[in-house]
Amino acid sequence: MKASELASVVGGVLEGEDVELVACGGLEEARKGDLSFCKDPKHVKLVASTKASAVLLPKDWQGDAPCSVIRVEDPNFACMTAAKIFAPPEPVRAPGVHLTAVIDPSVKLGEGVHIGAFTVIEKGSEIGAGAVIEAQVFIGEGCRVGAKTHIYPQVTLREGTVVGAECIIHCGVRLGGDGYGFNNGRREDGSVYIEKIPQLGIVEIGDGVEIGSNTTIDRARIGRTYIGPMTKIDNLVQIGHNVKVKGYSGLIAQSGIAGSTEIGYGCLIWAQAGVSGHIKIADGVQVGPQAGVPQSLDGSVKYVIGAPAESMKEFGGRILLPKMFAKLKAELKELKAKIDAK
Amino acid sequence: MKASELASVVGGVLEGEDVELVACGGLEEARKGDLSFCKDPKHVKLVASTKASAVLLPKDWQGDAPCSVIRVEDPNFACMTAAKIFAPPEPVRAPGVHLTAVIDPSVKLGEGVHIGAFTVIEKGSEIGAGAVIEAQVFIGEGCRVGAKTHIYPQVTLREGTVVGAECIIHCGVRLGGDGYGFNNGRREDGSVYIEKIPQLGIVEIGDGVEIGSNTTIDRARIGRTYIGPMTKIDNLVQIGHNVKVKGYSGLIAQSGIAGSTEIGYGCLIWAQAGVSGHIKIADGVQVGPQAGVPQSLDGSVKYVIGAPAESMKEFGGRILLPKMFAKLKAELKELKAKIDAK
Amino acid sequence: MKASELASVVGGVLEGEDVELVACGGLEEARKGDLSFCKDPKHVKLVASTKASAVLLPKDWQGDAPCSVIRVEDPNFACMTAAKIFAPPEPVRAPGVHLTAVIDPSVKLGEGVHIGAFTVIEKGSEIGAGAVIEAQVFIGEGCRVGAKTHIYPQVTLREGTVVGAECIIHCGVRLGGDGYGFNNGRREDGSVYIEKIPQLGIVEIGDGVEIGSNTTIDRARIGRTYIGPMTKIDNLVQIGHNVKVKGYSGLIAQSGIAGSTEIGYGCLIWAQAGVSGHIKIADGVQVGPQAGVPQSLDGSVKYVIGAPAESMKEFGGRILLPKMFAKLKAELKELKAKIDAK
Repeated sequence: MKASELASVVGGVLEGEDVELVACGGLEEARKGDLSFCKDPKHVKLVASTKASAVLLPKDWQGDAPCSVIRVEDPNFACMTAAKIFAPPEPVRAPGVHLTAVIDPSVKLGEGVHIGAFTVIEKGSEIGAGAVIEAQVFIGEGCRVGAKTHIYPQVTLREGTVVGAECIIHCGVRLGGDGYGFNNGRREDGSVYIEKIPQLGIVEIGDGVEIGSNTTIDRARIGRTYIGPMTKIDNLVQIGHNVKVKGYSGLIAQSGIAGSTEIGYGCLIWAQAGVSGHIKIADGVQVGPQAGVPQSLDGSVKYVIGAPAESMKEFGGRILLPKMFAKLKAELKELKAKIDAK
Repeated sequence: MKASELASVVGGVLEGEDVELVACGGLEEARKGDLSFCKDPKHVKLVASTKASAVLLPKDWQGDAPCSVIRVEDPNFACMTAAKIFAPPEPVRAPGVHLTAVIDPSVKLGEGVHIGAFTVIEKGSEIGAGAVIEAQVFIGEGCRVGAKTHIYPQVTLREGTVVGAECIIHCGVRLGGDGYGFNNGRREDGSVYIEKIPQLGIVEIGDGVEIGSNTTIDRARIGRTYIGPMTKIDNLVQIGHNVKVKGYSGLIAQSGIAGSTEIGYGCLIWAQAGVSGHIKIADGVQVGPQAGVPQSLDGSVKYVIGAPAESMKEFGGRILLPKMFAKLKAELKELKAKIDAK
Repeated sequence: MKASELASVVGGVLEGEDVELVACGGLEEARKGDLSFCKDPKHVKLVASTKASAVLLPKDWQGDAPCSVIRVEDPNFACMTAAKIFAPPEPVRAPGVHLTAVIDPSVKLGEGVHIGAFTVIEKGSEIGAGAVIEAQVFIGEGCRVGAKTHIYPQVTLREGTVVGAECIIHCGVRLGGDGYGFNNGRREDGSVYIEKIPQLGIVEIGDGVEIGSNTTIDRARIGRTYIGPMTKIDNLVQIGHNVKVKGYSGLIAQSGIAGSTEIGYGCLIWAQAGVSGHIKIADGVQVGPQAGVPQSLDGSVKYVIGAPAESMKEFGGRILLPKMFAKLKAELKELKAKIDAK
């Protein structure tokens, strides 16, 4: 799109060459063909050195730009508008079943569902109205997928999985795998045995849940592994069997929740954190990145960090230990000298 | 299933309304339609506040329940029986090859194998008798899968991978990817090079191994990456090239074993732990959650924790440092005061 | 292959039985049928106890072997030659499109491309000359894949993804998933809202990049998530939206880079490390295994470790704290005794 055209879309005024623009980019990473933006005068140097082909600036911006400039009321808002123009078009997933899909005759498809190529849906499953099931998805026996839920390619739902309405399930998500559960020990003759514990339950996902790429959620040993409404889960997260996430929580990338643990409403589990099994995290608690939580958190501390997890104050004190230790050592040395001098 | 019907199956006596039951659930998470259970008198309050429609209780239970009660000899055992009734039916994977599967004519299929829709098996591979290869699986050239092994949908086996008998491979497992191996440095002219080291070996999985969803096991650089018999691997675990797990070990979710390391018999690597490359973990050693093991463990310590990993005693001492430090600081202050007073 | 045959290939001399050899293996893990190798005299005991069927040894090797011996100039080099012989044959991916592939008529396929079974390529995408797209791959609308790039089975590229030339993308990689981004808060009536922030950008992968199994790279919120040329990424790595990896860097298994962070040229992010969002890691910096980096690293320290990450010297001091503390405590006790004695 020509810079002049974009300027008129965002209600701005073009100064300089009428360049061709193909994408948005931050001031530092932008390259030829990019439109960048800035509204903060303290970034005047970044603007002066950007490699963007054009930059959105406030009407009263003082300072040079090495490229075309589009002056607008609100550069951030204008950039958002431009980003929508440059964004890859969202693929249309029209109602209909791809002729290669293998769908058991007993499956109930709601009105207007889209089923992509090479998708398999096994007997007794139900897909709600307006749901989009993309290509190469596997939906096992007796699953239920709610209305308007969007399942991206190469997701697997093992038998009995229930997904609510208006969920978004990204590529490679695994719902309903067997939880890790074994009985082991020694037989009377001394030999070792490791026996699989049947995983008889299901996974149930509430409405409005989003689950990131390659995340895994295990079926319950008995009953349900439950992800409550509006929970947002990032990529590569592990959720063990019989975990219960009450709802409205966030679980960031590569975090893990061990079996039978309960996560309250409105919690935030940061990246790479781990929460032990059979414990409870109270409503609204945040678990910091890489933290390890060995026992229940009752909500008296709202943010924990470290492994084992503790309050920011405790963690901060621990981080300072080497400095405090050096100080104490010096004091002791001084005291010794004083005594020896007496 | 009606509560009365269930009572007769588990040999119990129904008290209260003959409700409809659809699933099992713990006392706290149970909801309408659920059957819960309790045998421990100390949970009398949890029973009194459960939202289950019915609860399995011992014959001599004292205390109220806000729902129907089924009195039985052993509530835990009865619940297990009920869980089997409520469980989603295990899908039947009858012998036969789905007509959409793409199987090279040279592939040898054992008696009674099941091959699902859209599965690809390349030339020279062999599938043992009674094996189940579900839908959308990829099995590269020259692979061998043992008798009665179950491979769930969307697993990939790169060329040459060997899987033993009676294994369970969950959705999204990647066997035989190239290990991470590069030579790099600078050429005489100062330019940087990064060269791929050929990964010429294979992955070999012993009998009775279970591998959780989205776990990745790399092929050897030379020879075999080996997972010994009866090893149980959880979800999202990373196993590097040339790792050798002798057998009867457990690797919990999101743990990682770097290249060429050997894990002894009967080890347990807990969640999110990391084990460095080119080291040995002796038989029976446990590596705690989130631990980082930089060097070989000879078995003189049976459980390690922390990063770098140490004994529970050492780790415990480290955790207590801030408190011990504060105490020492106070003592020093006291001593100073004493001296100044002299 | 017979040992005699192998001996002649590697220019060696066979001593002992002309055994059948099927694979290479290290001295300790080798088994019947394996060829092992040793050049270091200090491993004379390992050679004496190997279970290999034959071992490559230097011409002047002193010491016994419990198996056939092939004497050669350079055992390591000879073993590499042998490994190439024993390696599973690299599957031939001849030019051509599998008849089951579903490819939109608008897709541009370069000369000599290979497209495997059940692969889906959506409208407007372009595949460069000589590229190999294996079975069961999903390539969304408007993607571009460079010449000679190899995409293994069961990879997904969401719409608009750009992959450079001569890249290797392993099984289960997810490019272009939505980044984790939500606005949340409370409405005037007190109710909670969680709104998805549109993820309007793309993923762009430079030339010569390798990406390991089940790694996830999110599309940008605006603009591009960018992985620069020759970057090598291991398995199960998470890269957030708008991350920029300049190039020639390595990211080892299970590490994670949070949104909008910039990784310089020639960096190495070790296994299970985490780098926070919106920061910069200077060229050539290494982040140690399991490290957590909360803020930008300007390159004044070349290797950081621990969480929060610090220099090796600082980390080493921290590790020694318990010992140093015990020493200080003893000194204080001694001093007290001295004072009391006065």
